[in-house]
Amino acid sequence: MTKIDDLPIRDELRGQSPYGAPQLDVPVQLNTNENPYQLPEELVARIAERVAETARNLNRYPDRDAVELREALAAYLTRTTGHPVAREQVWAANGSNEIIQQLLQTFGGPGRTAIGFEPSYSMHALISRGTGTGWISGPRSADFTIDVAAAEAAIAEHRPDVVFVCSPNNPTGTAVAAETVLRLYDAAQAARPSLVIVDEAYVEFSHRDSLLPLLAGRPNLVVTRTMSKAFGAAGLRLGYLAADPAVVDAVQLVRLPYHLSAVTQATALACLEHTDTLLGYVGRLKAERDRLVDALRGLGLEVTDSDANFVQFGRFDDTHAVWQAILDRGVLVRDNGVPGWLRVTAGTPAENDAFLDAVATVIKEL
Amino acid sequence: MTKIDDLPIRDELRGQSPYGAPQLDVPVQLNTNENPYQLPEELVARIAERVAETARNLNRYPDRDAVELREALAAYLTRTTGHPVAREQVWAANGSNEIIQQLLQTFGGPGRTAIGFEPSYSMHALISRGTGTGWISGPRSADFTIDVAAAEAAIAEHRPDVVFVCSPNNPTGTAVAAETVLRLYDAAQAARPSLVIVDEAYVEFSHRDSLLPLLAGRPNLVVTRTMSKAFGAAGLRLGYLAADPAVVDAVQLVRLPYHLSAVTQATALACLEHTDTLLGYVGRLKAERDRLVDALRGLGLEVTDSDANFVQFGRFDDTHAVWQAILDRGVLVRDNGVPGWLRVTAGTPAENDAFLDAVATVIKEL
Repeated sequence: MTKIDDLPIRDELRGQSPYGAPQLDVPVQLNTNENPYQLPEELVARIAERVAETARNLNRYPDRDAVELREALAAYLTRTTGHPVAREQVWAANGSNEIIQQLLQTFGGPGRTAIGFEPSYSMHALISRGTGTGWISGPRSADFTIDVAAAEAAIAEHRPDVVFVCSPNNPTGTAVAAETVLRLYDAAQAARPSLVIVDEAYVEFSHRDSLLPLLAGRPNLVVTRTMSKAFGAAGLRLGYLAADPAVVDAVQLVRLPYHLSAVTQATALACLEHTDTLLGYVGRLKAERDRLVDALRGLGLEVTDSDANFVQFGRFDDTHAVWQAILDRGVLVRDNGVPGWLRVTAGTPAENDAFLDAVATVIKEL
Repeated sequence: MTKIDDLPIRDELRGQSPYGAPQLDVPVQLNTNENPYQLPEELVARIAERVAETARNLNRYPDRDAVELREALAAYLTRTTGHPVAREQVWAANGSNEIIQQLLQTFGGPGRTAIGFEPSYSMHALISRGTGTGWISGPRSADFTIDVAAAEAAIAEHRPDVVFVCSPNNPTGTAVAAETVLRLYDAAQAARPSLVIVDEAYVEFSHRDSLLPLLAGRPNLVVTRTMSKAFGAAGLRLGYLAADPAVVDAVQLVRLPYHLSAVTQATALACLEHTDTLLGYVGRLKAERDRLVDALRGLGLEVTDSDANFVQFGRFDDTHAVWQAILDRGVLVRDNGVPGWLRVTAGTPAENDAFLDAVATVIKEL
């Protein structure tokens, strides 16, 4: 039988494993920051209706520029942030991962570098490597906030072409202040003209406002978003960005033509029609997130402040053993490789109770 | 206003234009090799049904490995080629463009090269460039067949890491004999261990059999397919490959996690349930394709033998002027940049009549 290493794959891929959380069949799955609530039946019906309308003409390629969808996304951003965003400033793709890949193909790539402040969303580093962009692991404080002076120094030293700021940060949970992003943007531009990407995948759950208003007058700033979290549509795979229209024009040079299927566009449009219903879950999840923080602290654990739909908790000497012990009690959480810490997604009240029961039992046995 | 060139994009992207056929609103669109027939109503209903089922759980990420879909695609390949293909040999993505991108990220990339025999499907070169893979333009005979000796010599000289063979070839139309592919595969392996990709996007329209049976015993051979053409589902964006299971394992190292949405998977599965209905159009389109070949030759034009759902015709001194003149008569065909030649998609009988009338008028005025 042929093995991967028998094939003429790239040298740096040899011995690697595919990225991805374990997909295990356990009763309580709190490991991938999904929204725990099924879509309401009226939205399911509307999706079926819009997909049926578009399916009749599925023999034709989709709208390559996804104009109607970008218009709807721009309207959503305008309405929820109070900052006017035009369709020309918005681009959409199959998940924010593909958005980031397109940005790195345009602004990163061979001979260029990107920096992120780790621990952070690990796909930033992985997609950098996948696009041939050199990866620089920037510093983060012991409390998982960004130390601005240390970050500025790292930018000045490495002069990266792309700077990632994840706010709220995954997997640690805390949002980044606008002043911090502004200082990093200025430091990056001072080092060399470079793209600053603010990943706001979880921003709808935050105590802080979106950083979208910072786009004005900063053509090298990009904010990325997703419908996977607050919209509760992880299965849809719809990520998007907002930026200067020139950035949207630039990614056209590398995007695969017709990358976004007609059914994805139709389903996303149906979800956007039901924005208020979907965002209704956000309030519930924020309350549950806050309850998790309090309860975990009540158990004597350390918890990082969370602006997201997940909570980082610790610290453990043997992180993997604690992860396994919680799993043995039917609850799947995430070991993101941050030594001493685990991450749990805010689920339904019942799921969170099951998780808290499991943790309470497990830490007694430590 | 900021322009693309004001941004810190990669140098090689400066001054480039996005790839894509003009999307013009004209009565007869025969420029992108789409299937002209809308999906039948019973399939539209089944798509809506399957999408509704999956939409309820859209809050969860899709099956990252698309197991059910790959099983159905493997069954389709097995049934239509008589060559047994297992699920482990099949991988699916958002269009065959994404399949090719994943293959190049795994087997091409910076410091590596790919060769294609041009003119051929221009995305092979574009995705090579997009993944940092050096592109080598290999030779093709004046009659647009592959000159095996010249191709072998090019492979021996350049020692590429990836070899593209498009069969039937787009935009010229002719399929490649199995013996030719075998000689190119052997030449490629003799030069260095390398991946040979046979792009069979149009194979269901061919007079020749699929080259899938060649996969046995050749772990460095890949056959790519799409549901955009014979399945009449260009809007779905579903491409796939068949190869040794190790190749499928290898692309897991670069694929974006959850790249294929739950609605895309559900829609593709519905289409695969209706395979026989959809493939029923193939017979009609082949008959129309043959009619176009005969009629264009009857008009005194040169026509390349076609195994696809399109026809290359010429030769014209001013190709663009002829393209424009046909467009002025309400028919959009494709100028693929092959000097002297244009390409027309086989449409409905009425569309093809409109096209033939336009051509007959235009060439009288030349």
